[in-house]
Amino acid sequence: MSGALDVFTAPRNVVVVGASNDSTSWGFWLARGALLGSDRRPVYLVNSRGGQVQGRLVHGSISDLPQEPDLVVLAVPASSIDEVVSEALARGARGFLGITADVSGTGDPTLRAKAERDLAARIIAGGARLIGPNCLGLFDATAGLSLAWGDFASGRLGLVSQSGQVGLEIGELAKRFGIGFSRFISVGSQADVGIAEALRDLADDPGTRVAALYMEDLGDARELVAAALVLRERGIPVLLLHPGTSVAGARAAASHTAALAGSTKVIDSVARAAGMSRVFTPAALVGAAAVLLAPTAPVVASTRTFPTGVAVVSDSGGQGVIAADLLESVGIAVPLLDPSTQAVLHRFIPLHAGVANPVDLAGSGEADLANYARAVVAVAADPATSTVLLTGYFGKYGVDSQELSAREGEVADALVAVAAGCSVLIHSMAATGPTAARLRRAGLPVFDTIEQATSALAGALCEPPDPPAFLTPRSEPADRSAAPSSEPLGGASNYAQVRALLVGRGVRFPAALTVVPTHPGSDRAAVIAAARAIGGPVVLKATAFEHKTDVGGVILGLTADDVGGAFDRLTDQFGAIELTVEEQFSYPSGAVELLVGGRIDRNAGPLLVVASGGIFAEYLLDSTAALAPVSRVQADRLLDRLRSSRLLKGWRGALPADRAALVDVVIAVSDVLVGNDSEWTELEMNPVLAWSGGAIALDAWGVRASNAQASGRLG
Amino acid sequence: MSGALDVFTAPRNVVVVGASNDSTSWGFWLARGALLGSDRRPVYLVNSRGGQVQGRLVHGSISDLPQEPDLVVLAVPASSIDEVVSEALARGARGFLGITADVSGTGDPTLRAKAERDLAARIIAGGARLIGPNCLGLFDATAGLSLAWGDFASGRLGLVSQSGQVGLEIGELAKRFGIGFSRFISVGSQADVGIAEALRDLADDPGTRVAALYMEDLGDARELVAAALVLRERGIPVLLLHPGTSVAGARAAASHTAALAGSTKVIDSVARAAGMSRVFTPAALVGAAAVLLAPTAPVVASTRTFPTGVAVVSDSGGQGVIAADLLESVGIAVPLLDPSTQAVLHRFIPLHAGVANPVDLAGSGEADLANYARAVVAVAADPATSTVLLTGYFGKYGVDSQELSAREGEVADALVAVAAGCSVLIHSMAATGPTAARLRRAGLPVFDTIEQATSALAGALCEPPDPPAFLTPRSEPADRSAAPSSEPLGGASNYAQVRALLVGRGVRFPAALTVVPTHPGSDRAAVIAAARAIGGPVVLKATAFEHKTDVGGVILGLTADDVGGAFDRLTDQFGAIELTVEEQFSYPSGAVELLVGGRIDRNAGPLLVVASGGIFAEYLLDSTAALAPVSRVQADRLLDRLRSSRLLKGWRGALPADRAALVDVVIAVSDVLVGNDSEWTELEMNPVLAWSGGAIALDAWGVRASNAQASGRLG
Repeated sequence: MSGALDVFTAPRNVVVVGASNDSTSWGFWLARGALLGSDRRPVYLVNSRGGQVQGRLVHGSISDLPQEPDLVVLAVPASSIDEVVSEALARGARGFLGITADVSGTGDPTLRAKAERDLAARIIAGGARLIGPNCLGLFDATAGLSLAWGDFASGRLGLVSQSGQVGLEIGELAKRFGIGFSRFISVGSQADVGIAEALRDLADDPGTRVAALYMEDLGDARELVAAALVLRERGIPVLLLHPGTSVAGARAAASHTAALAGSTKVIDSVARAAGMSRVFTPAALVGAAAVLLAPTAPVVASTRTFPTGVAVVSDSGGQGVIAADLLESVGIAVPLLDPSTQAVLHRFIPLHAGVANPVDLAGSGEADLANYARAVVAVAADPATSTVLLTGYFGKYGVDSQELSAREGEVADALVAVAAGCSVLIHSMAATGPTAARLRRAGLPVFDTIEQATSALAGALCEPPDPPAFLTPRSEPADRSAAPSSEPLGGASNYAQVRALLVGRGVRFPAALTVVPTHPGSDRAAVIAAARAIGGPVVLKATAFEHKTDVGGVILGLTADDVGGAFDRLTDQFGAIELTVEEQFSYPSGAVELLVGGRIDRNAGPLLVVASGGIFAEYLLDSTAALAPVSRVQADRLLDRLRSSRLLKGWRGALPADRAALVDVVIAVSDVLVGNDSEWTELEMNPVLAWSGGAIALDAWGVRASNAQASGRLG
Repeated sequence: MSGALDVFTAPRNVVVVGASNDSTSWGFWLARGALLGSDRRPVYLVNSRGGQVQGRLVHGSISDLPQEPDLVVLAVPASSIDEVVSEALARGARGFLGITADVSGTGDPTLRAKAERDLAARIIAGGARLIGPNCLGLFDATAGLSLAWGDFASGRLGLVSQSGQVGLEIGELAKRFGIGFSRFISVGSQADVGIAEALRDLADDPGTRVAALYMEDLGDARELVAAALVLRERGIPVLLLHPGTSVAGARAAASHTAALAGSTKVIDSVARAAGMSRVFTPAALVGAAAVLLAPTAPVVASTRTFPTGVAVVSDSGGQGVIAADLLESVGIAVPLLDPSTQAVLHRFIPLHAGVANPVDLAGSGEADLANYARAVVAVAADPATSTVLLTGYFGKYGVDSQELSAREGEVADALVAVAAGCSVLIHSMAATGPTAARLRRAGLPVFDTIEQATSALAGALCEPPDPPAFLTPRSEPADRSAAPSSEPLGGASNYAQVRALLVGRGVRFPAALTVVPTHPGSDRAAVIAAARAIGGPVVLKATAFEHKTDVGGVILGLTADDVGGAFDRLTDQFGAIELTVEEQFSYPSGAVELLVGGRIDRNAGPLLVVASGGIFAEYLLDSTAALAPVSRVQADRLLDRLRSSRLLKGWRGALPADRAALVDVVIAVSDVLVGNDSEWTELEMNPVLAWSGGAIALDAWGVRASNAQASGRLG
């Protein structure tokens, strides 16, 4: 597929249709940008009004061009698009960049969407490709292409953005770090080329060292994961900015890009599968890119937790404390330095000053600027840390005093030398001064505020990818014989069906018999026999009802002697409905309640969800998700991400829960969701009790594809 | 007290001892700053080397001055301090500003602290006051005093800082918003003048409109609360930056200012009592100050939740979404705009664009810059919002194009007009451009990144103060006759004593009898009689043991018939130890487990703590604190701040808990802590069960003042 996008990175020529002399118009900026590359390839300007634009002759139409058009930039009113595209396709154009915002020209969202689909279909049928429409354009440093509003700096950050202006903002902020774009593609309405394809294409760009995505709609998330994995394999980290998970944010995204509300758990699960790091603002994205583009990037975690921490060096105790608080608040350790490191530091730092980490220079930096570099060298060598954050006054001496400027510059060079082998971040109270500029020229990230530095570092710490076993769920039915059902499937209720499905996958439920009496009194003997077989106390449930408790359809604490009477009462009351006699399960000591379930997500496909369960599940807000299928190791990691995972490991003296049994339950749901051996689009067991003796599900419900609209909590 | 600080704001003259010509020395900056005020008062430079400094004659000593010294700045080596102070006191100096970092000159922290105490004592005994030592100096715009390293802009922000350099950083960041200091006091080691007194003094400064504190040690938190309340009464909001609550941060604070680890819950409770707003970085402090200093500050909540939300206006759907996400993430609502407001917006915004909030200008701003102002006017008038956040390109048109510069300036003026009646915040992609400067000159806060804007707004939303009924806890014993004990106080165990104390305050515990057999078999009959009186199942506990469960000292499910046998077994096993026979309490349906307790906090004094309780209390991390004593209304608010307060209101169909009974329990602990009718420095009941039928404590422990070092979880 990637080859198909060659026209956007290596066009034989560029044709700007709608070129203009008006500096407040798109036609001006696009013509201006295209002409910047006129030493690389022919550039043709087209405008039906003819004349000259920016000193160049303007052609009246595509037909007038002296050469076959290759990449055609559409910056014309909607009414002209059809004609321009027809002419260009007829003359062999291979690519279109659609700037025009509303190709229907009506202002009506439905008509606009249809016109976009039609336009893309025509272009694809004509053997060409389309970026946009409704996009800001594209920039490619290697190709010398600048087909967008604005000025872009060249660099090594590749950006694919669903919003043109967010892309512009990222570009502006990046300039401050001395960072430019290797490529910037504003995908607009994605009528043809989508985010995933554009991202995949970045993997082949020799100029891109860090990639970033801005998106409001995950689209086919598995295609995205596959694309990001290709970049990760080639050593290109991928940053993901996907807003719209707040109430108002989702509302806005819905009207902006027709994106439905994205769940932050789904985005997290996609990011984890692909090894993408989530950031939440353009500035954090740029800061993270600056950290990753430095001579040495922070050590990427080889386990799920970051293996080593950050050494903070400050020339103010207060600033060191603030930095340490912020780092810990984003989950980054500020570990104790080795005593030998502390001893080295105390050779030049006063004994009263703290050097355990954060390190407080306590006036020693002011006394001799070289001590800044000495301290950074010392902490960079400590085995407990892999990143150094220098925060405070450094960079301002040269601003305050000419005498100190050259000296500070020399120390900056010493810091650059350290950064060749260790990630070094700098927060300077004079981030726009000459020393900061010197550091930036050498590729070091210099931040204006401490929170920018810490959020950048947090964003830069991408975990390794943890993709599902296969990215495209199998469509063939799973082998049912491998998981024989040991239960009658006599019931037709939701509970009975889901229960039977999961029991068939090896999930333990309390022993039960489900019957549907054909007339009052039928099956009474079977129920009594079942109660006798179960032995202990049983519960009789009118499982025919979704809200069986509310209608008085649950009778607890029965024995084989009185279950018959209970059966009679329920059938008298409700008639011949589905009833289930079930072992009344006592909570074992130390049992932890979990929720295990999943659904077929619109974007992510089969998605597993585990959460703290029981009746407080919604209040605890402790859940996590992963793309299915998961391996046993991945199921284990999924459980580990819960806050309540601490409870599973044995809380306050209780024995640890039977982890293998719990993993079995997660795998069972994974298999059901992926196997397509049923029509279930949503499944949930809550509670699943996990304790040292095993795991058992006490309730379950599901949604069938045919009833997907009637979703909701059942039972 | 405040009058005593007059010398630091209205000195008759200023004497800089240690004045220097070396621009890298403190003596240079202090002399330079002092001389800036030489049109306001005599300024004398002193240096034992004599000569000239900055073109002024230098006196060899204090004795040589032509006038009695008034405010003396100490920038001399430790070895000279004694002599300088003696001479100055002898000649009637009223104030000293101690810059010198280590007045002991030894580098030893203990000797240094002693030297500081001695210095302060001498100065106070001499009738004068001391700021510092080890401080960066002070600045006062109204007084025209600049006695510190660095250049300060004059303005309306009053800052008291325990760290000089953090104060400098705040000053540098503030300049970008066009904000300056009304006063900046670096309190250093606080050997005499402390943060609370300096803060209180700000209330009398006519130039201060917003106050801010940087501190690493709360000191006497109640004195601080009292000072902040004076400012709040005069309409001066107070911002609090108190780091050091992370593990590494606490470690650093301990070595930096000898502050012990501050609990973030304690800081929160102090901030709430005083109506201070917590911020977490210098940039957030400055941003919040900019928001509060704008022509109209955001509406301060009259209830504990912010009454109205923020209207977001952007010229990019993506930027609006990002802003909305960030606002909600810091707890600020982005409410739906009224349909009438949306109709007004759609007069100039395309119909396909979202205007529900966030408002997406969708090209209409670019088409006519006046639409920016139209949109802000429209949303400012909406009843659901009290603050407008404009985010995106505005401010950059003038940078891109000369033609648009004047037009953008006019629109900026229209925004300023709106800001006269409504809080308006602006995030601009060109925050350093001419339009942004124009907005700032009019007092509007213009932010460089969207996260700066949202964290500034969050910091600016101070809740009203909620102080304890009295700030200094009563020292007289409470009237014990008002709360007669209905229980024998036969037991000597921790549990028995705490239980009796709280039962005496009206807290319900299960019915119980505690005995200490004098010989095997004694009290057996009393235990059986108690079990019979209790009636239901009872539990027999060897309450003599702190870890009674671990030693097998708890026997459950007993009746009056078998409690005697259990009594025999325990006395056989353990001898004549304290035993308690207690009603075995069954958890009522819908019961919620809470922890209710408190302690005498080092900084905050009597401090109440409520938390989600039960064995999962530590895992749930759901606790909140308040300065005692609390009123019933305050106790209610305290409970409301728990995440689990939702459970108390009736979760999933359960009846709401008996709130009045639960408030009684909180008040009982408050009374014990404040009343000083016992020596208990720490108390805890966990669990306290709350349900529709009442509240009952099932376990309790405490720490006596005499055993305060032996604290820890008992029982």
